[in-house]
Amino acid sequence: MPQPPIRIAISGALGRMGRQMADAVRADARLALAGCFHRPGSVGDGLVSRDEAIAMADVVVDFTTPAASAELARLCAERGGPALVIGSTGFEAAEIATIADAAKAIAIVRSGSFSLGLNMLVGLVEQAARALDPDDWDAEIFEAHHRHKIDAPSGTALMLGQAVAGGRDVRLDTVARRVRDGVTGARPAGEIGFAVARGGSIVGEHSVSFRAEGETVTVSHSAGDRIMFARGAIAAALWVAGRAPGEYDMRDMLGQSARA
Amino acid sequence: MPQPPIRIAISGALGRMGRQMADAVRADARLALAGCFHRPGSVGDGLVSRDEAIAMADVVVDFTTPAASAELARLCAERGGPALVIGSTGFEAAEIATIADAAKAIAIVRSGSFSLGLNMLVGLVEQAARALDPDDWDAEIFEAHHRHKIDAPSGTALMLGQAVAGGRDVRLDTVARRVRDGVTGARPAGEIGFAVARGGSIVGEHSVSFRAEGETVTVSHSAGDRIMFARGAIAAALWVAGRAPGEYDMRDMLGQSARA
Amino acid sequence: MPQPPIRIAISGALGRMGRQMADAVRADARLALAGCFHRPGSVGDGLVSRDEAIAMADVVVDFTTPAASAELARLCAERGGPALVIGSTGFEAAEIATIADAAKAIAIVRSGSFSLGLNMLVGLVEQAARALDPDDWDAEIFEAHHRHKIDAPSGTALMLGQAVAGGRDVRLDTVARRVRDGVTGARPAGEIGFAVARGGSIVGEHSVSFRAEGETVTVSHSAGDRIMFARGAIAAALWVAGRAPGEYDMRDMLGQSARA
Amino acid sequence: MPQPPIRIAISGALGRMGRQMADAVRADARLALAGCFHRPGSVGDGLVSRDEAIAMADVVVDFTTPAASAELARLCAERGGPALVIGSTGFEAAEIATIADAAKAIAIVRSGSFSLGLNMLVGLVEQAARALDPDDWDAEIFEAHHRHKIDAPSGTALMLGQAVAGGRDVRLDTVARRVRDGVTGARPAGEIGFAVARGGSIVGEHSVSFRAEGETVTVSHSAGDRIMFARGAIAAALWVAGRAPGEYDMRDMLGQSARA
Repeated sequence: MPQPPIRIAISGALGRMGRQMADAVRADARLALAGCFHRPGSVGDGLVSRDEAIAMADVVVDFTTPAASAELARLCAERGGPALVIGSTGFEAAEIATIADAAKAIAIVRSGSFSLGLNMLVGLVEQAARALDPDDWDAEIFEAHHRHKIDAPSGTALMLGQAVAGGRDVRLDTVARRVRDGVTGARPAGEIGFAVARGGSIVGEHSVSFRAEGETVTVSHSAGDRIMFARGAIAAALWVAGRAPGEYDMRDMLGQSARA
Repeated sequence: MPQPPIRIAISGALGRMGRQMADAVRADARLALAGCFHRPGSVGDGLVSRDEAIAMADVVVDFTTPAASAELARLCAERGGPALVIGSTGFEAAEIATIADAAKAIAIVRSGSFSLGLNMLVGLVEQAARALDPDDWDAEIFEAHHRHKIDAPSGTALMLGQAVAGGRDVRLDTVARRVRDGVTGARPAGEIGFAVARGGSIVGEHSVSFRAEGETVTVSHSAGDRIMFARGAIAAALWVAGRAPGEYDMRDMLGQSARA
Repeated sequence: MPQPPIRIAISGALGRMGRQMADAVRADARLALAGCFHRPGSVGDGLVSRDEAIAMADVVVDFTTPAASAELARLCAERGGPALVIGSTGFEAAEIATIADAAKAIAIVRSGSFSLGLNMLVGLVEQAARALDPDDWDAEIFEAHHRHKIDAPSGTALMLGQAVAGGRDVRLDTVARRVRDGVTGARPAGEIGFAVARGGSIVGEHSVSFRAEGETVTVSHSAGDRIMFARGAIAAALWVAGRAPGEYDMRDMLGQSARA
Repeated sequence: MPQPPIRIAISGALGRMGRQMADAVRADARLALAGCFHRPGSVGDGLVSRDEAIAMADVVVDFTTPAASAELARLCAERGGPALVIGSTGFEAAEIATIADAAKAIAIVRSGSFSLGLNMLVGLVEQAARALDPDDWDAEIFEAHHRHKIDAPSGTALMLGQAVAGGRDVRLDTVARRVRDGVTGARPAGEIGFAVARGGSIVGEHSVSFRAEGETVTVSHSAGDRIMFARGAIAAALWVAGRAPGEYDMRDMLGQSARA
């Protein structure tokens, strides 16, 4: 099914994610690199102007700052396109409102993490937690990270705990069991346990187990390389190209199929 | 929330599952044992007549034969209750039709496997397969069983393969890779691989991994004890009590929450 | 290689382990059941007297009390046989001395745990810990048990921690990290971390991971059934039959091969 | 314990391993970079002559060609030092003899794989296989690699199979079960099974499980990054510095402790 490649512009092209994205686009036959820009005015060194890049693109992928992303969204919406994939984080309310407004005119995928696998994991966990009676199924979360990590449990482990709690319609802080040491007593039903390992150079491992009498269901994610974030943003670009206006996130992509 | 216990009658009470079910009901404060019967006529030894048991029950749990289950369904439907949990297997078309007809009057859960965990796993796998692009995510199934098992891959592993294939809208037999040995060449995208281990007394382990550049999502199930089947039938009885007429399976239970 | 079966007497034959041992002996073609006794005087119901059982046996397997085991050892030593497998626990110094004395005349295997696998695991862990530089390799122990367990970490997990510490010539209590929660700081080299999960009906899972830059070595044990203890005692009986006088443990068996 | 750093010369300094080694030496406070050389004559660009580098070094790390390594060994032996770490592969008999001869005068570590973890794994597997009766313990090997790998099972998996077979004093080819598909019959005792997965970008995962009635022992290795080979060569350099003349391999290092 030979189709013309989807044309991608890269915003924030001199940043780490921008460079990885440009490499990933060049390596993908389904995509063509429409142009790279960093700040609106800086050109040369393979960069073009923002307007030039946008004019040639079906999708702009943007890992910059909240302010730059919001302005870019407004600009693309005024022009009636291209679509946007936004990976900046730390937005304030006004910037979020600007993006929501732009999403009336164009399709925008915005996410704080473009790992497809982790987003998938969170969805599966919430669903399993909703279906499996907490009186019978004990939920336990395990995470392992490299020796340099300075806090525990990881933010992702806590997010998975939130997903279990959400599926069970309870608040995580009322049922979380963050440590077990010494005489703990028997495990109360409904508890959500955390266990932590640190060592070596592990990028990140997470698992959630639901254990009942005689059987265990486990869903897990293992990250080997930060390239997964660029790959997830590529998948978002493919997914959002030509899509109806609206603001989407990775869960929408996964719910409706990354291939749609 | 003290509620009156749900009254359970056991059909096929002298069979292995019947005995396990009776024990499980006695051990569960949410349930009361309304009566055990084996064949319609055999009484004594703790057994009552079928009519007597049915008259006292909110739910009948039935692990018998297709013919006996179909007749029981017809009988309960005529009386306007109780609800039914049917675990018999090997039904013929006429028996299935009888049960479907009965389900217009009463709620019936029927399943070939009452492992909540395995039914959950199949649902998660299909969903993950639907969302994760097969060009990027390689699906591989691993199963391990005890040394006495005489075939490979296990029926459950093949069912998981069907779930991956179904999520991807392909036929399993066109993409299954059942063995790898020698010079195999690079792995084609879209392939569904199987790997098998045998040893010791393992009741059953299954996992499905989706592996992409830099990340892996795995869902797995481990069975330690056949008691899980009785536990799943108990969950079905709790779920079906007082439910609207219709024929349901474990997936319905899991989709709508085992606690509903 | 048809050899005459080794004749096993069972001491403490009415206890749980005694019954399992008798079943295991009957099921094993390499063994013959020489006689079962419980207390010295109680006969009938398939039991014989202690003297009668001993006279017919190559090996006595004894899961009773420290006092009974010590007396049995003395008695067998006086007679110049049979050999002994002792699984009683809680010995006092005088009883240990009696057994050590008896071991000058007969071969005795004594152990607090007859799980071959766990004894093997401890040995592998100590050896790995000795070989892998703790500045490079971070040791972390994970254990999971059923929801009814009331303390953490498990005794076996602590024993594994001792094995790591022993291999590194340090004291466990100076390097153990039993919990991690909140801002922990980076992981110090040499630390031995513990992580705990509780849930369902897990008999016992233990793993020790050594993680370095870019690679991880893990050794793990999973218990599915308490039958493993009877099996380990059978292996000890096969190993000790005809062996030179001395007091042995499971590590001796494993070091010299369970098949010797 | 402040000691003067061990001085390392890098042979083959322009190769991939040579560059990684130089970086690793610079980053390690226990080591000092004595000099880098590529071919005997090529200098400049940070390179010095071979003689100059050798004269300043306690240990030379050499990842070059069999001929270059053999000549280097002869040269160092004539001078009475430095010690050598050789990672070249594909030696012919005459070159091996030259190195063995040199090892009468200096200490040499030579290995085909400097992964400490994999070498450790092989040793643990052989030992477990020797101790665990194959009539009771079923050995199964699992490996997973990236989607581009074109053969199966991996060379390392076969090496692990050799370690199991060696521990049991049998030949691998008489007991290997490389695939299972369809009606296989029950698993024969003594068989060594292989299972293979392919997908994503996995650098390499290997595990060997020994499964008995009711328990399983597993030893496994996971590689996340090729940097582990440089790290292993560093450990070898630290180990060999100041050691008595002789030819050693990684197993010697691990057997006697990498910290000696």
